[in-house]
Amino acid sequence: MTVTRTIRQAALLAALAVVASPARAEDPLSSWNDGPARRAILEFVRSTTTPGSPAFVPLEERIATFDKDGTLWVEHPVYTQLLYCFSRVPVVVKARPELAGVEPFKTVLSDDREAIARIPTSGLLKIVEATLTGMDVEHFGAEVKAWLATARDSRWKRPYTELTYLPMKELLRFLRASGYKTFIVTGGGQDIVRVYAEMVCGIPPEQVVGSATGTRFGYAKDGEPFLTKEPKLLLNDNDAGKPEAIHLMIGRRPRAAFGNSTGDRQMLEYTKAGDGARLAVLVLHDDAKREYAYGPAAGLPDTKVGTLPQQLLDQARAQGWVVVSMKDAWRRVFAFEP
Amino acid sequence: MTVTRTIRQAALLAALAVVASPARAEDPLSSWNDGPARRAILEFVRSTTTPGSPAFVPLEERIATFDKDGTLWVEHPVYTQLLYCFSRVPVVVKARPELAGVEPFKTVLSDDREAIARIPTSGLLKIVEATLTGMDVEHFGAEVKAWLATARDSRWKRPYTELTYLPMKELLRFLRASGYKTFIVTGGGQDIVRVYAEMVCGIPPEQVVGSATGTRFGYAKDGEPFLTKEPKLLLNDNDAGKPEAIHLMIGRRPRAAFGNSTGDRQMLEYTKAGDGARLAVLVLHDDAKREYAYGPAAGLPDTKVGTLPQQLLDQARAQGWVVVSMKDAWRRVFAFEP
Repeated sequence: MTVTRTIRQAALLAALAVVASPARAEDPLSSWNDGPARRAILEFVRSTTTPGSPAFVPLEERIATFDKDGTLWVEHPVYTQLLYCFSRVPVVVKARPELAGVEPFKTVLSDDREAIARIPTSGLLKIVEATLTGMDVEHFGAEVKAWLATARDSRWKRPYTELTYLPMKELLRFLRASGYKTFIVTGGGQDIVRVYAEMVCGIPPEQVVGSATGTRFGYAKDGEPFLTKEPKLLLNDNDAGKPEAIHLMIGRRPRAAFGNSTGDRQMLEYTKAGDGARLAVLVLHDDAKREYAYGPAAGLPDTKVGTLPQQLLDQARAQGWVVVSMKDAWRRVFAFEP
Repeated sequence: MTVTRTIRQAALLAALAVVASPARAEDPLSSWNDGPARRAILEFVRSTTTPGSPAFVPLEERIATFDKDGTLWVEHPVYTQLLYCFSRVPVVVKARPELAGVEPFKTVLSDDREAIARIPTSGLLKIVEATLTGMDVEHFGAEVKAWLATARDSRWKRPYTELTYLPMKELLRFLRASGYKTFIVTGGGQDIVRVYAEMVCGIPPEQVVGSATGTRFGYAKDGEPFLTKEPKLLLNDNDAGKPEAIHLMIGRRPRAAFGNSTGDRQMLEYTKAGDGARLAVLVLHDDAKREYAYGPAAGLPDTKVGTLPQQLLDQARAQGWVVVSMKDAWRRVFAFEP
């Protein structure tokens, strides 16, 4: 009895230390304005990490999943991953000159922005396949890294890695300091996102779940084994694919999930439907001045990139998801702002 | 300059604390006999975790992968997973009575051990499909847990969870205390292994990579979303499938890998071929008295379960893998031994 009580007290103190440290130090969400979103997040973390709270969640079950494009960093006007693919087209055409006269490669080589913006999804998939497969996985990672070091976005003239939302970076750190394991669950390519997830968000490769092509194990001429990226889609990590991939890669239903568009709906539903305390958060792009404004949440037509129909907004409000208006909830959007 | 130096010193002290604590406390591998295997493992951990060592590995790259059947626990005379599947056959037949007269279900229901042992691989796959798919993932986990609580093996009359090798459990703990993240990479079913990996080996679900069927996201009548296990093989985590799944699920080449049979060959090759210090370990089943002896390593014919041909043994020795003879290297095999 005494031993049990001592163990319980020790566990209690350890758990308190975990939650107490970030709070004591300084405001963990200083880029968030006081308001319902910030309050709901703080209350979720407090109630799930305070021993004795009816909503307390054991350490090993503290899983939080984040969509990437539009939730952790900018997705408009075009997914950064696609810009990387476009940048690789000349290299691919050099190796396979027959592609120079074939669409959509011809259009990409023309550098005609308007024509490029009109490439249909089927054409984009051809570009993705040609530029993201066929190479050794380790060479691929090095190439993405080299591109990220020099590429700049057209609006802010900054590396894409700086276009990460400061309030979300704070939230990632706050959750981790509170014992949550943070994962990225993205429709983007897993191998690309892994290259910068660690650098930008403090998330290691094994905590990045994304759309993934298979790889093929083989041996080089000198007998060294290596893995080649295959043009075979193994996981489409969008829509229903998100909870399915979460089960495959993580094996637990998240306690908290964060998204911003229709591709995140099932992940948010699946998270929110679990027992006990669950947090589903939807980020709205309604700040044209500091970032972008698009879709019904901003009183504008819906867009192909970051689709968020009115119906999903209504569902979020009806089901008690936390809705984050960038304009209202975020004091700062980017770290580089004055 | 001074600040940088202070940070460096702090990092150094932190790293030293990680490696120093297990060594100071007591012998971390007390179930291992002194000999070449134990010495090679200790030296690998020392050299990769000592700051300033030429073989030093940064914390985030310390990934160790372990096969399960035959490496962490007993696999003879038959994989535990199959025994679970056999135990589920009556339940499946109750729900689908037409299977009672169909092979291989008829044989399993007959309880004729010799006939069951003769079921071909194609028949075993039918049993696996019928017993491991079609249900909600959360119900599945609860059923496996309930079975593990009551099932006993026929030789030691103990729960299967006790048939884990004590020296390997020590090794898992020692690696973790040295900053390594430990993963299971098994040909067994991911969802089954996850149920006991945490309980038995301290490995959480998100660090279990296994053969996996897909799941299907859907909604119950009350609108609650759930995932159903589908009879569609997504990952065959054997042979070349092991490094391929390691890339998919972990995204880094392991620094250390542990296996015992031909299904682990490519994982061990891939691990050993990386740059810097790498450890590949092959466990031999050559102790009929305390566990089992089978295959060329024990001077016996090769077996279907835990196949380890002479050729792989030769390769292991030629390529500097650490070969662990259970008989010679392990002072104790199981925790329940006197």
